[in-house]
Amino acid sequence: MENFLQSSLAAFKILQQTAPEIKAKLLNDIADAIDENKAAILSTASSESNLPEPRLEVERGRTCFQLRMMSAEIVNGNWLRKVVDVAIPDRTPFPKPEIRKMHVGIGPILVFGASNFPLAYSTIGGDSVSALAAGCPVIYKVHPSHPKTSHLINDLIQSAVKKNDLPEGTFIHYEAKDFDEVKQLVQHPIVKGVGFTGSYKGGMAIYKYAQERREPIPVFCEMGSVNPVMLLPEALKAKAEQWATNYCGSITNSVGQFCTNPGMLLAIKGPELDQFISSLTEQINKITAAPMLSQSIYDNYEHRKKEVLSQSNVTVVSDNITGQGTCGTPTIAKVEASDFINNSLLHEEVFGPFSIVVACDDEAQLAQAYDVLEGQLTTSIICESDDYALATSLMEKAMHKSGRVVFNGIPTGVEVTTAMVHGGPFPSSTDSRFTAVGIEAINRWTRPVSIQNCPLDLMPNALL
Amino acid sequence: MENFLQSSLAAFKILQQTAPEIKAKLLNDIADAIDENKAAILSTASSESNLPEPRLEVERGRTCFQLRMMSAEIVNGNWLRKVVDVAIPDRTPFPKPEIRKMHVGIGPILVFGASNFPLAYSTIGGDSVSALAAGCPVIYKVHPSHPKTSHLINDLIQSAVKKNDLPEGTFIHYEAKDFDEVKQLVQHPIVKGVGFTGSYKGGMAIYKYAQERREPIPVFCEMGSVNPVMLLPEALKAKAEQWATNYCGSITNSVGQFCTNPGMLLAIKGPELDQFISSLTEQINKITAAPMLSQSIYDNYEHRKKEVLSQSNVTVVSDNITGQGTCGTPTIAKVEASDFINNSLLHEEVFGPFSIVVACDDEAQLAQAYDVLEGQLTTSIICESDDYALATSLMEKAMHKSGRVVFNGIPTGVEVTTAMVHGGPFPSSTDSRFTAVGIEAINRWTRPVSIQNCPLDLMPNALL
Repeated sequence: MENFLQSSLAAFKILQQTAPEIKAKLLNDIADAIDENKAAILSTASSESNLPEPRLEVERGRTCFQLRMMSAEIVNGNWLRKVVDVAIPDRTPFPKPEIRKMHVGIGPILVFGASNFPLAYSTIGGDSVSALAAGCPVIYKVHPSHPKTSHLINDLIQSAVKKNDLPEGTFIHYEAKDFDEVKQLVQHPIVKGVGFTGSYKGGMAIYKYAQERREPIPVFCEMGSVNPVMLLPEALKAKAEQWATNYCGSITNSVGQFCTNPGMLLAIKGPELDQFISSLTEQINKITAAPMLSQSIYDNYEHRKKEVLSQSNVTVVSDNITGQGTCGTPTIAKVEASDFINNSLLHEEVFGPFSIVVACDDEAQLAQAYDVLEGQLTTSIICESDDYALATSLMEKAMHKSGRVVFNGIPTGVEVTTAMVHGGPFPSSTDSRFTAVGIEAINRWTRPVSIQNCPLDLMPNALL
Repeated sequence: MENFLQSSLAAFKILQQTAPEIKAKLLNDIADAIDENKAAILSTASSESNLPEPRLEVERGRTCFQLRMMSAEIVNGNWLRKVVDVAIPDRTPFPKPEIRKMHVGIGPILVFGASNFPLAYSTIGGDSVSALAAGCPVIYKVHPSHPKTSHLINDLIQSAVKKNDLPEGTFIHYEAKDFDEVKQLVQHPIVKGVGFTGSYKGGMAIYKYAQERREPIPVFCEMGSVNPVMLLPEALKAKAEQWATNYCGSITNSVGQFCTNPGMLLAIKGPELDQFISSLTEQINKITAAPMLSQSIYDNYEHRKKEVLSQSNVTVVSDNITGQGTCGTPTIAKVEASDFINNSLLHEEVFGPFSIVVACDDEAQLAQAYDVLEGQLTTSIICESDDYALATSLMEKAMHKSGRVVFNGIPTGVEVTTAMVHGGPFPSSTDSRFTAVGIEAINRWTRPVSIQNCPLDLMPNALL
């Protein structure tokens, strides 16, 4: 471990002095190699994750898109966030010096991939690519759910590193033996940042290891959330069927194994909600259950689902029975808001194709049911124009509880774009000031440095 | 405590919906009130801090400048860092939704002021003003070194809050009885961020309290540093006298009680360094010692100075004896780099008018002496054009060890400007990704939120 960490540190020093064009070419070369090795990557990832190849092909496209987007960002240099304050030599009482500012990488970054994204949030996923864009070497802890896929991708990365004459410590691919090794990595002085995507339990374990360090470092854990959806009265009246169809798709897509899966639907009681529930359950019942990512994810789904369903006054409204083996059976449950509000066990995520409908007496109770939730990656508001008064007050709450507020849409499908925030108030992430998706994901791994009164001959190229 | 924290939370909800013009006016009104009450503020602050009125008048000007600068920022809205990604309805395989992003405040911020800046980094100093600019109410923990000054400023703040019909929880002024109350505040769920300026010991105590919370929150502690200065050979040859004069001023200004005080001078042995040392000590000997901020700061200065001077092969080169009572006697010490490198006790800050000259055998040893230092707020490089080869390699190191790199100048005098970074790698701060000075100090207290597919009627004003 000490050897590869030292080589990572050595690589950091070199990468911080490497021309942007070369760092950009590295990412493009990796993307090209992933394109060229598409067939092998898809079949390997599919066999390890149970995800069908068409779904993985979308994810592969996203992975290459992220690599090329970050590559372009390295060259345009926006991420450096340069500022130049001109000197004012005759200012009184003291002259003002010239000060320029840019951002630099913080050091080697330890990345933990996600089981549900073997490509886009694993080996060369969002965390790794954003770190490399900042000139930070990556120490990637291989995810045990898809080691073969990871090795395949790592081979392509290592070839691209060699081809561009970059140091071998640029990307370290490491299979940790046990939690003790993970702890050693998180606590090692050479590691200057941690990126994690996964469960609350896993994220908080990493976070607590980091807290025992002498030197505090940024630890960005994206730990999922319930992603509540508020279906407002007029929208239910006008389009119950349409939203039932959209939400059935969002809940069951990839066996519900997305961090932004809508696990909770809040609405006001009445015949419209009854109609929505019957449309939704009818469609949920038609979905053929598919195998989940792993035995442990299946076990956890079954455990959490049973736990929620055993709470008082929680009823199952779907009767889908297509699941066998490790297939995750899509399930819709229902509970009265009064029971929901006082039972915090119902406020937490059930990772898988599960959603609970919270039936509220009125607008006030709907707001109250939303208020008891903790921080979320997303909140969705489904509304028609006659709902806007209610929507406005709920939106004010949602902006302070979530990383993203979605109107009249589904929360799954996280766009890789500059305006995206994938993260959110705790417990959806450990630092709501950053995003794991989009260009600004780089900001997690950079810090500003001011350069005062620097002779032009010594000025870093980026600041000239 | 519970009452005022609840009122702070209530204020947060209101401030997040308050028009920018009103928040801006609050800060301007406070600045105007500080101008109008100048005489009382200066005399009170001077009697509590031992700082002379002319020095405090500069600080008062800085305080008002910061208030008005942040006021302007609230109105121009740059801090919102808005991004709009347009929809692409006909994108395949899925349409791209419109996504807009803006920043919002994170919640009530707990601020700990600094004893050495009773105005600019205390009650309505940099941390408080940047929090208010983001619409975050402030809970200010009164600094025991200057309670009367703090109450005077707080009265002006409360009047301005009332005048602008803002909620009373906007600014809470609280004298904590003991450390236990401080701990309760840091750990309270309503508190969503902490700003601290002071010693390493104090900062880390606060930081550790925060680590015991269930919900992680941003804790930005600015904890000072040694601020090494590297005097390169040609600069010593050409301008030893001039730099001795400048550095004598920087070391002794305000009895050396600045976080950016240059506590260490690194240079290569030779007659030029001898001449620099003799010029510097000659001038240091002429300075009349002045009383330090408090008895405890004086005691700490004496303790740390004695500790450093008792290390093997450390010699005092100045013989200033003007100090009496709690006056901090300016002191210059000297040590060989070989002794310095292996003694970590010499690498740490002595808060006060003290600087140690590290005499190096050659360029390699100078770099080695710099390498053993931990993170710094500033690093200064004094050089002539014939030093540029050496300066380039030292600068690469300095950019990764410090928040600010100063060329041919002194590190004291932190400009309030956009390009300023006041912060730096640990232990100079707890999060090197942020600055405590300048517009971007606001970023510590904000988080991004994405709004997807929002009807224009519901769009927040800031995003229209």
